[in-house]
Parts: sequence; C-alpha cells; structure tokens
Amino acid sequence: MPQDLLPPIVMVFAASDPSGGAGLQADIMTLSSMGCHPLSVVTALTVQDSAGVEDVLAIDADWVADQARALLEDMSVSAFKVGMVGSVENIAAIAEIISDYPDIPLVLDPVLSSGRGDELASEDMISALRELLLPQTTLLTPNSIEARRLALDESNDEDDPGLAECARRLVGAGAEYVLITGTHEHTPQVVNSLYGENGLVRADAWERLPGSYHGSGCTLASAIAANLANGLEIAEAVRDAQDYTWQALENGFRPGMGQYLPDRFFWAREPEPGEDA
Amino acid sequence: MPQDLLPPIVMVFAASDPSGGAGLQADIMTLSSMGCHPLSVVTALTVQDSAGVEDVLAIDADWVADQARALLEDMSVSAFKVGMVGSVENIAAIAEIISDYPDIPLVLDPVLSSGRGDELASEDMISALRELLLPQTTLLTPNSIEARRLALDESNDEDDPGLAECARRLVGAGAEYVLITGTHEHTPQVVNSLYGENGLVRADAWERLPGSYHGSGCTLASAIAANLANGLEIAEAVRDAQDYTWQALENGFRPGMGQYLPDRFFWAREPEPGEDA
Repeated sequence: MPQDLLPPIVMVFAASDPSGGAGLQADIMTLSSMGCHPLSVVTALTVQDSAGVEDVLAIDADWVADQARALLEDMSVSAFKVGMVGSVENIAAIAEIISDYPDIPLVLDPVLSSGRGDELASEDMISALRELLLPQTTLLTPNSIEARRLALDESNDEDDPGLAECARRLVGAGAEYVLITGTHEHTPQVVNSLYGENGLVRADAWERLPGSYHGSGCTLASAIAANLANGLEIAEAVRDAQDYTWQALENGFRPGMGQYLPDRFFWAREPEPGEDA
Repeated sequence: MPQDLLPPIVMVFAASDPSGGAGLQADIMTLSSMGCHPLSVVTALTVQDSAGVEDVLAIDADWVADQARALLEDMSVSAFKVGMVGSVENIAAIAEIISDYPDIPLVLDPVLSSGRGDELASEDMISALRELLLPQTTLLTPNSIEARRLALDESNDEDDPGLAECARRLVGAGAEYVLITGTHEHTPQVVNSLYGENGLVRADAWERLPGSYHGSGCTLASAIAANLANGLEIAEAVRDAQDYTWQALENGFRPGMGQYLPDRFFWAREPEPGEDA
C-alpha cells in the first residue's frame, strides 16, 4: 500500500549541471541520499564537463517563479536551499517567494564561481544576494573566497580583514549563521567555521584530500538543508553534513579528464572483497 | 582515497519536472538508486505540481546538443535514455548525437502525454520520433496508449490492431525491442509485454495498485537503462526493472493534493517498528 508517511520535502533553486557533479543534480542526489524528497526549480542551464563550465543560460525570472509557486501551493516544504541563481531578476523573484514562507529555514550557498574559477556571478548579483537574500538566510555557506567577496567593502580598498570579521559582517547583513569552508585556505587541514551572532559556534578540521573536486559546496549545503528538514539543530546539522560530505569526497570518482565527483551514495556501495563492510 | 572504479554512466535526455515525480529528476533518482552515475541533458522545462503539467518551455536544439557533446567528449557512457524531447528540432539533434555512438544501447521512453493526460508531443514530433529515433532504439517503452499512437497508420482510419500487432509494426520501424506497459488497459492485473523481432519475448503480470502515480514510466525506463549499463541482457534488465518500479510504486507517497510519487529509495528507508526488516 502507498505510504502516508512523507519524506521531508526540500525545495532547491539551482542551475542544471548536466555532469551531475554540482548544481541541482548534486542537490537531488544529496537530498535523496539523506532521506528527503527534492523539489528542484531550474534557475539556469549550463554546458559543462568534468573540467569546467563552458556556457551559462539564465532562465527568465517569471519561469523561475512559476516553477516554485506551483509546487509551494501544493506541498509542504521543510527547507529551502538556494544555489546558483543566474541573474539579478532571479534573485529578486526567489527573495519574494521566500519572504512568503518566513518559517521555512533557508540555506544559501553563494555560488560566485565554479570550482575551476569560471565566473558565475556579476557584482550586481552579489549586491542583490546581499540585499535581498542575506536578511532571509538561516545559514550562509560561502567558501573563504566567497566570504571575502561578499563581506569586503569594495568602495574601500582594504586589506583582508580575516574570516572571523567577514563572518561578523555577513551576520550583520542579516544571515543568522555563516559557515565558512576552508578548502581554499593554505592550512594543513581543511577547517570549516560556523559563526552566529555571538561569534564562533564551532570549528571542524578535516583531512585535506589530494584530489580536485567538483560539487563539494553544493553537496555540503544540500546535506545541511536535509538535516534541517529532518529536524536537527543548526550546529548538529552542520557537523553531520560535513561528515557526510567528507565521506562522499573521500569515495569520489573521476568520470572524465577533469575533476573528481563526490559519490553521494558511498554508503550504498558494496564493499570491495577483503574490505571491511 | 578517491576511487578509480567508476559507477556505470548513463546519459538521459529529458525535461525537468520540478516536482521530482517524473522527468530528469526521476531519472537521476532512479539511476542513482541503481548504482549508476546520471548525466542529464535538459530538453525542456515544465511548470507542474503533483496534479499535472501547467506549462512547457522547449530548450533550443543547439543548447541540447552542446550539453550532450561536452560530456560525451569527456566521459564514457554505458547507456542512453531519451524521455520527453520538447521539439522536433531537439529530436533531430538527439538523433544525430546518438548516431555517433552506435554501440551504446538506447532506451526510448516516448513521452506523448503526462499521467493526467496533458498533451506533450505534437504529430510532427511523433513522426520525427518514428523516423529519426526508432531505427536507433534498443528498447522502446510505450504504454499501451502510446504504442497505439506510434503504430497506427493515421492515413488509414483503422480499428485497434491489438498490442502485439502494434509491437510488430514498431519493431518493423526499427526498434530492436518494444516493452508495452499495461497500466492503462482494463485488465485485472497490469501486464507488461516485451516483444522482439520474433514476437513476444516475455510477459510479466503485476498486482494493480490502487493509487494514481506520477513518474512510473520514467522510473521503469531509467531502471532498464541502469540495468543495461550494469551489463544485464535485455530480458533480465526488463524483468528486474519492473520489479524495482513496482516496489517504488508500492512504497509511493503523496506529497501534495494530486498523484502519488514513486519512492525510488524504498530499499534505504528504515522499517517501521514491528515491520519486517
């Protein structure tokens, strides 16, 4: 018989990455792997392979809004996740929709460039993220480069203020929590730091893996959204999602000539002969 | 350490269904659930909820081709699956790409209308499917309504020739095998029949479930593509995928006010207390 028990439903706003490494495809796999049902609103299309992004096509804001509204009027959503948005108009459309659901937590992964460094957001888009989405954000998940770009006062040719100060400014701009990931820092381990209104909440250190990965940020942000939808508190949601992501990366595979992709279903693979189950 | 062992890679050409019920989202979940890595080429966007399709936007054929070519030049694909195509131009683009990879099996799920009956393919698109894609198809997976529409001679106002005759014509038009699903027939059980060049290969009967489901056809076709990518022979791939799909439907859930969605990760859910593990 069909089940009346629903998996928690998470709505993502994201670009399509046909390679399955990042974007809404990564979100769908991560959310499914963590027991949630994904709703996926397409904000942009991309052409990409495992080496990088070749082309981007933003979807019209009306189409972004229509995709989301049809679902939100029909289903009960437990968390939002916003990834790559495609245009300033799309940010405005998403912000307006999310403002109608103030009780649903929002994880905002500010996708400003690809893992390889392809530019994916203009200065106008960064301003719009800051003004329209940050004040509605439960958790912002920038890497250290994105944290600096979002927090730096461009009008003011200042030196690097440090990541703790960036986090303080981003919380000041409206984000309830900020998780800054340390993959791009030159530290022996990767240190991810969660900040709230009273400063550092927790910091977790992870072994730095040797490969170059595509989609680690999407995986982490989606895993946190899944944990929030499953009812975890923010610090535990962040800790558990890092553990999940690290394992997905550690079990990653290289499908082409470029980067490794996370294996988001590592837990379902059969162990190799001779390997511990 | 990252793995050098790759999951089999399956490329789907499909429309986005933001509800996660059908379309490329269903393909991604099914392929992941069955141990494959999905590549997903977006052919069209839709607005839909759990009740039906509200709007369709076909993606330009150049964009469809670019998404696929970038990946095919980078990765080794073990199976193709084609679902909703969006336009005659997209069918031509997909057919040209697939003709460059004659050794990769192709599962063609001819999406002519939604589960609710929303029209998703014009007569021109049906002709193009027949002329350009059928001759390259390893397995065609129409439901009985689609089988009749694809097989009937429109110029000839004939009576229903029967499903075995429809299958014979579709094999005559170039499909290596045809699996006609019986959900829409008025039989006590659902009977799915696999035909090849010598007629019926196997027929499987399944308990008719009480609910109305969204995405059962996408799930079945993707599960077959996953099995072919995993190296199964066609009859075994078809039988196992029906079993998988039936279980996904039997464990389905109703996220909104419309149809039930298959639970493609039924095998990963924890049993309810008192239930057998």
